[in-house]
Amino acid sequence: MLRSYAQLVTLLSATKALALFPDCSSGPLKNETICDSSATPLDRAKSLVALYTLEEKINATGSTSPGVHRLGIPPYEWWNEGLHGIAGPFTNFSDSGDYSYSTSFPQPITMGAAFDDQLIKAVATVISIEARAFNNANRTGLDFWTPNINPFRDPRWGRGQETPGEDPYHLSSYVHALIAGLQGDSSDPYKRVVATCKHYAGYDMENWNGNFRYQFDAQISQQDLVEYYLPSFQSCARDSNVGAFMCSYNAVNGVPTCADPYLLQTILREHWGWTNEEQWVTSDCDAIQNVFLPHQWSSTREQAVADSLIAGTDLDCGSYMPNHLPGAFAQGLVNETVLDQALVRQYSSLIRLGWFDAPEKQPYRQLDFSDVATNASQQLAYRAAAEGIVLLKNDGLLPLTIDSSTSVGLFGEWANATDDLLGNYYGVATYLHSPLWAAEQLNITVNYASGLGSSSDPTTNFGWMSVWPAAAASDVIIFISGITNDIEAEEKDRVSLSWTGPQLDMIGQLAGLGKPMIVVQMGGGQLDSSPIVNNPNISALLWGGYPGQDGGVAIMDIITGKAAPAGRLPLTQYPSSYTNEVPMTDMSLRPGPTSPGRTYKWYNGTAVFEFGSGLHYTNFSASVNRGLESSYDISELMSTCKQSNETYPDRCAFTPSPIQVEITNIGTTSSDYVTLAYLTGSFGPAPYPKKSLVAYQRLFSISGGSSDIAALNLTLGSLARVDMKGNKVLYPGEYSLLIDN
Amino acid sequence: MLRSYAQLVTLLSATKALALFPDCSSGPLKNETICDSSATPLDRAKSLVALYTLEEKINATGSTSPGVHRLGIPPYEWWNEGLHGIAGPFTNFSDSGDYSYSTSFPQPITMGAAFDDQLIKAVATVISIEARAFNNANRTGLDFWTPNINPFRDPRWGRGQETPGEDPYHLSSYVHALIAGLQGDSSDPYKRVVATCKHYAGYDMENWNGNFRYQFDAQISQQDLVEYYLPSFQSCARDSNVGAFMCSYNAVNGVPTCADPYLLQTILREHWGWTNEEQWVTSDCDAIQNVFLPHQWSSTREQAVADSLIAGTDLDCGSYMPNHLPGAFAQGLVNETVLDQALVRQYSSLIRLGWFDAPEKQPYRQLDFSDVATNASQQLAYRAAAEGIVLLKNDGLLPLTIDSSTSVGLFGEWANATDDLLGNYYGVATYLHSPLWAAEQLNITVNYASGLGSSSDPTTNFGWMSVWPAAAASDVIIFISGITNDIEAEEKDRVSLSWTGPQLDMIGQLAGLGKPMIVVQMGGGQLDSSPIVNNPNISALLWGGYPGQDGGVAIMDIITGKAAPAGRLPLTQYPSSYTNEVPMTDMSLRPGPTSPGRTYKWYNGTAVFEFGSGLHYTNFSASVNRGLESSYDISELMSTCKQSNETYPDRCAFTPSPIQVEITNIGTTSSDYVTLAYLTGSFGPAPYPKKSLVAYQRLFSISGGSSDIAALNLTLGSLARVDMKGNKVLYPGEYSLLIDN
Repeated sequence: MLRSYAQLVTLLSATKALALFPDCSSGPLKNETICDSSATPLDRAKSLVALYTLEEKINATGSTSPGVHRLGIPPYEWWNEGLHGIAGPFTNFSDSGDYSYSTSFPQPITMGAAFDDQLIKAVATVISIEARAFNNANRTGLDFWTPNINPFRDPRWGRGQETPGEDPYHLSSYVHALIAGLQGDSSDPYKRVVATCKHYAGYDMENWNGNFRYQFDAQISQQDLVEYYLPSFQSCARDSNVGAFMCSYNAVNGVPTCADPYLLQTILREHWGWTNEEQWVTSDCDAIQNVFLPHQWSSTREQAVADSLIAGTDLDCGSYMPNHLPGAFAQGLVNETVLDQALVRQYSSLIRLGWFDAPEKQPYRQLDFSDVATNASQQLAYRAAAEGIVLLKNDGLLPLTIDSSTSVGLFGEWANATDDLLGNYYGVATYLHSPLWAAEQLNITVNYASGLGSSSDPTTNFGWMSVWPAAAASDVIIFISGITNDIEAEEKDRVSLSWTGPQLDMIGQLAGLGKPMIVVQMGGGQLDSSPIVNNPNISALLWGGYPGQDGGVAIMDIITGKAAPAGRLPLTQYPSSYTNEVPMTDMSLRPGPTSPGRTYKWYNGTAVFEFGSGLHYTNFSASVNRGLESSYDISELMSTCKQSNETYPDRCAFTPSPIQVEITNIGTTSSDYVTLAYLTGSFGPAPYPKKSLVAYQRLFSISGGSSDIAALNLTLGSLARVDMKGNKVLYPGEYSLLIDN
Repeated sequence: MLRSYAQLVTLLSATKALALFPDCSSGPLKNETICDSSATPLDRAKSLVALYTLEEKINATGSTSPGVHRLGIPPYEWWNEGLHGIAGPFTNFSDSGDYSYSTSFPQPITMGAAFDDQLIKAVATVISIEARAFNNANRTGLDFWTPNINPFRDPRWGRGQETPGEDPYHLSSYVHALIAGLQGDSSDPYKRVVATCKHYAGYDMENWNGNFRYQFDAQISQQDLVEYYLPSFQSCARDSNVGAFMCSYNAVNGVPTCADPYLLQTILREHWGWTNEEQWVTSDCDAIQNVFLPHQWSSTREQAVADSLIAGTDLDCGSYMPNHLPGAFAQGLVNETVLDQALVRQYSSLIRLGWFDAPEKQPYRQLDFSDVATNASQQLAYRAAAEGIVLLKNDGLLPLTIDSSTSVGLFGEWANATDDLLGNYYGVATYLHSPLWAAEQLNITVNYASGLGSSSDPTTNFGWMSVWPAAAASDVIIFISGITNDIEAEEKDRVSLSWTGPQLDMIGQLAGLGKPMIVVQMGGGQLDSSPIVNNPNISALLWGGYPGQDGGVAIMDIITGKAAPAGRLPLTQYPSSYTNEVPMTDMSLRPGPTSPGRTYKWYNGTAVFEFGSGLHYTNFSASVNRGLESSYDISELMSTCKQSNETYPDRCAFTPSPIQVEITNIGTTSSDYVTLAYLTGSFGPAPYPKKSLVAYQRLFSISGGSSDIAALNLTLGSLARVDMKGNKVLYPGEYSLLIDN
């Protein structure tokens, strides 16, 4: 077996070859079906795989694929990242000039707060266009390990920042728009890039109290799976034609997900109909190793790769499969049919990306650096930040009136943030505009001092001193702080939801000066900001998440009224006591003896700020224009649905559809408005959720005294509840539609 | 109050002035008592403080002291670090040439494993000499926030690496030698530097499951305090004349230690007689703030600084006291007498360091860079590493026979370690000799591949591939891995004691090759190495901790037999299940319903390796030369003690003293030998510890067939037990003396 190692090590030098293409015009394959663009992708892929030896097939199961030199198949790197802009370990930015930067958008948690699916599709379109430009310059691949679409179940989760929030309907709608933006329309002849919905499933804990993601076994009821953990993945697979899935590190109900035929075959492929030849599953990076250790699901390394491949994992992010499949074949643990199936899926997908086709026929292959970081893309990054900022408290100080005589004190470790603006999984941004930078562009006096740092940093002590003269010289105090990836990160869950003692002390002292004061809370997971809410000397509180390359400008524009806030919290802000009330390992959504429940639907305590919270610089009124009837007959609804061509009853429209809600700006300041529609009522299996989001729409720039119409598309799925067995059912009962919180 | 802020900000520029001295020959103070070197330090300090205004006194309470310009008192930076070499936030290494490096010794956990107090004193002497040389070049101060002498109670503690281990007798003996080395002999006219015993008391948790060091309230019984948590501090204060103490972030039994008169006055000063005018207490950095928030012990900031100063905290590492004492005085919460007392202590200490005296009379003031990183110091750093390495398993492979035809495979993320060799709190080392570097100095073939990395690092996957050809080409496999400060660190406790899945997988695969294989376990807190112990294909296991600048050479010298291993584990290696059996917050030593007990004295499970474990390349026999009597009369022992001049009965010698133990090397390889002496028996209050270390002595280079004598000084304290109230008592009963494990 050792012989194959020497060969695999040659892959190392191949990792730089991100975007070489097979030569179908004059290469060895030119007369094979794989190079016949009139053939079906399935036939083309099968013809190629049939030419491979077993060793060549096995070598193709790792994410750094060596290709097959004798056939003119170049190496290919499957692993690329694109969470909020192109990024990742193998994306190659040049040191200067062309291809030295790209557009870096806010983290999904901030974009989720915009509740604007159009925005998400536009952002994803830019990311995939920039990816194509970089790919054409041999600087990235065409497959992206994005989106992270696990719901943000527990506020401690270190990677919750990578998701749009806690609500499964919101995630499903968001990810549908995102995949359309990344991959392009299904009618396009070529996919722009292939997106990968991850981490399937039940992955939302890094490392909490000895529970590592690599070995955690998530115990999830069938009801919670269908109702909460899977809808966003169903949206990916069934409703959005995503090209790839990623199975996760953890196990679900005893089985590591990458070796689980129930999740990968029964649910994903059979139940959701995700059976196109071009759709494939990759493991999370090194997750197949984890099937052996530490899960100990498979008793040997060879068994682990066989179990994973047979269960439906078609690609290994890593090298465990190419390393150990030779042994698995030697032991008869796996056959070539299942290996061929995996490879056909991979190559079908590359065919749909145009990998084998002549570049001159492919518009995406013509993109270059002039399509990267365009003015329009930069504006979009700014817009995404401005739309996602949430106003949580305002006694009337905001929007802040400034003129050349205004002196603003800017404090806190986020005030001069650079990389922190980007969160994680970021490439090289076009620029990094901190709040300080933005303030300095205004014609005002800015007195800046960070004032805080980690306690092991000697500036902790000494930084404080510089705050007081700066504060004394200021008319207005802006404190921008919170958490960063020092606290919430991959492999790092939080253990506390509190602002730190030093942060609260500085906030308290600054507030004690009695000057107008604004706090901006940053970071993905929420902090308990009740001390700020309850401090009468603090006029305003904003939440900004990780707002991306232009985040500082967006924050200052909101503060000064150049932009009006309309974002909504995409997750619950729990009181800090929450961490003592439920262990992170408890996956249940409903309250129980050892849990107060999770998300706005089930949490039975008093949130500091509820999901959907968000104030404006004006006031809005809402009225339902096209009325609902007072009662509906379930059998009629179902029979109408059956008469349509819709395969899945939960996607049938609930007529009248759309429900039209007229939103009127009854104040004077022009502002966007996010229409949130919830259903509530005592129907279906008890207990009942407090309410459930069933539709949302962002309306834009409604000026004072004007109105706009939100058109809310409800479906039968909006009305359904999930029973204990995981069935979605329409139940008789009283239903109420709530607009806004 | 704001006015004083503007003044304090000038301190920022003062932080560079580490070692300016008052001018007592021609400055404004030349005729004052402070400049009269024939006066007592107390009178001198009092005379200076009497010249200060209240504002000047208050400004002197922070660790970056601005001095008093009008009196010619220069700024002084109290905060310096010297854990295993000069280091710290304000130590100023030049970029190149003189003063660009110093000697970096192993972390205390490795030096603790040497069980060699002579070594510790020699190391501390070098550190303090190098500190003086740097001080003379205005590159560091003279006060050092070292040693960290909290016992290593729980294997998860992120800073346990900074301590010599888990045993209170060991710590007490170690710290006595250390302080003598750092400060010099008490008969010296000047102290070399001032050491600071920290963190007083009950501090040994960073951030476990939401319990932050800044707010944790350690519940400790009086028995455990006296028996376990305080002996090392008693050794510092009562027996070693340490110059300074540091109170800790945590609270003990409800009271934040920096505001606790019971700990700072009743125990430290009154009970232990630590009442010289030059002895002072500093807070941990920003700990006084924590008295207010998050402890909420004091209701206001002003009350917090008043409570801390009155309780006996004389200096604030940070700026909270200078910031808030003006308010505390305005509110009448504190008086000038207690402030004067703090300042007299500070300045008396500086007087004992020669700060006010003519440099030409002070040998320490003549030291310069030629006294730094001398050949002797480099050799000492090597010796400290070699003495601290522990051999845990050896089937006879070690010492490894090598010649020019030998091909060694070197794997694991520690194989090419650089800064990791140093742990934390390190300055610039003279060099960093990794195991790889050391191997390359031998006339052998070295095949190196790291092979591992963190999972977010793309080399994880790809690094593996390079391991196999390297392993295939090797006659012997050496795997050097474990944990680093990525896992155990300040503000970061561990949550698992296991090797990771990828580590165990690689170890298993390498062992599966069937070649001679050695594992070297690195890092401070122990890992459960039972999978290595139980793998018959792995011949040897070493533990190296954090071995410092020459650690790689020491490891390779032990492996190749150029040096013989004689270190002993200074802490228990628990099975990985231990973390599930007791929460880190449980401070009890004895087993209970929710704890299997702590340390080798009380743990009722089966350790993977016990405290004191350590093999040799030879065998030793021991015999007690000067016999013990079969029984002793307690009242006679006490009356003999009373007749001596000893103030503290527990320090009275237990005659015959010393007990002489003859150690014979009954093999052939010359080797050091650590004599460990334990007492065991059913005397005093139940339950009884399994055994208790009462003496140790390292013997050097005993050649095959030769003997040496260990002279073990037992005291009445060695025989005493601690009752529930914290009294040390001699009890009747059966006592047994055990030599070695």
